[in-house]
Amino acid sequence: MELRDFFPVWNRLTSAQQAILTENLLRRTVQKNTLLHNGSMNCTGLLLVEHGQLRAYILSEDGREITLYRLLDGDICLFSASCMMRSIQFEVMIEAEKDTELWSIPADIYKNVMDQSAPLANFTNEVMAGRFSDVMWLLEQILWKRFDQRLAGFLLEESVLEGTDILKITHESIGSHLGNPREVVTRMLRYFQNEGLVKLARGTVEITNRAAMQKQYGT
Amino acid sequence: MELRDFFPVWNRLTSAQQAILTENLLRRTVQKNTLLHNGSMNCTGLLLVEHGQLRAYILSEDGREITLYRLLDGDICLFSASCMMRSIQFEVMIEAEKDTELWSIPADIYKNVMDQSAPLANFTNEVMAGRFSDVMWLLEQILWKRFDQRLAGFLLEESVLEGTDILKITHESIGSHLGNPREVVTRMLRYFQNEGLVKLARGTVEITNRAAMQKQYGT
Repeated sequence: MELRDFFPVWNRLTSAQQAILTENLLRRTVQKNTLLHNGSMNCTGLLLVEHGQLRAYILSEDGREITLYRLLDGDICLFSASCMMRSIQFEVMIEAEKDTELWSIPADIYKNVMDQSAPLANFTNEVMAGRFSDVMWLLEQILWKRFDQRLAGFLLEESVLEGTDILKITHESIGSHLGNPREVVTRMLRYFQNEGLVKLARGTVEITNRAAMQKQYGT
Repeated sequence: MELRDFFPVWNRLTSAQQAILTENLLRRTVQKNTLLHNGSMNCTGLLLVEHGQLRAYILSEDGREITLYRLLDGDICLFSASCMMRSIQFEVMIEAEKDTELWSIPADIYKNVMDQSAPLANFTNEVMAGRFSDVMWLLEQILWKRFDQRLAGFLLEESVLEGTDILKITHESIGSHLGNPREVVTRMLRYFQNEGLVKLARGTVEITNRAAMQKQYGT
């Protein structure tokens, strides 16, 4: 992938702007479980995912987590460069969920080009609106969906991301995605197993009845 | 107030851009409880609050509400013009909480200027980031705060907005702000009354011990 593949507005940048972005591009390869960005502690810069998977999440004071959204091949991570916008008053953590090849653009470089370029500023606006939509979806799930529905939806989404019905994931980790304690996850998974939706084994959750799971999720 | 008071980047727009925005400005006076914007049903345009108070909220399929944020004098309402950004995939309702004097700019007019002007696009980005921060704050409250803390925080905020300790508000309405059923609100208010934090009467909640209330909220 090249820079133009990440930025649909690439051809509307001047050659000077294209050169600044290209010259300051850093290539990084990170291993699974690497913490790439830690709230306002650092200003990592804009991350462009070439191949792999990142997870954006928030953390409570007492260490609980909830997943906000995932970033996949071709996605741009804006909040790792949140220092470039003073109105962003929240702390997002970004970690690699798989071994990931990515590029980064330093926040001040990107901000300088965005300050001059209406196409890049408007594109960045669309990227932020997309993440905002992800968070609004999450808020609505938490407010209006029951936990059984959210868990079913999560397992179905994981199964699509991993391309398999046998998910290698712990109950603890599911809890960190959904913002619930492990015990609550275990109890609901056992209920799902009794209903014939999943089969549980050490370290795995297998979806055994996808149609019933989709019905459970309410779609 | 004039347009330049809403837009700190006003002087960085061309005179042609300033003229387009000024010529297409509409003045509106709306009464308390007017529904100004209804999700994707309409594209109301950008709203500029000169004097009054708007409430942005979301609605579940079965009619439950939760307040996302308030817009006060000098604030800009972006999501009433959400049609101008295709990545905004959620539905926000906007209603007047007080009699309000406002201006509106049609979404297509604003979008045309924003497409040409990097300063306006970057300013719009900051406005969106501010709302995003409000919603992240709300998400964290819902995830990590107990209901008693959220209720105490809401009463303290209302008291600042209204400039009084005696709030004219029903339990039903508090429930719509916080996303909880009326019964849950009533039960917690009675607990607050027993603790000497508030005094309840028909249609009012009086804060009688502000210091204890702040402690309850956890600040």
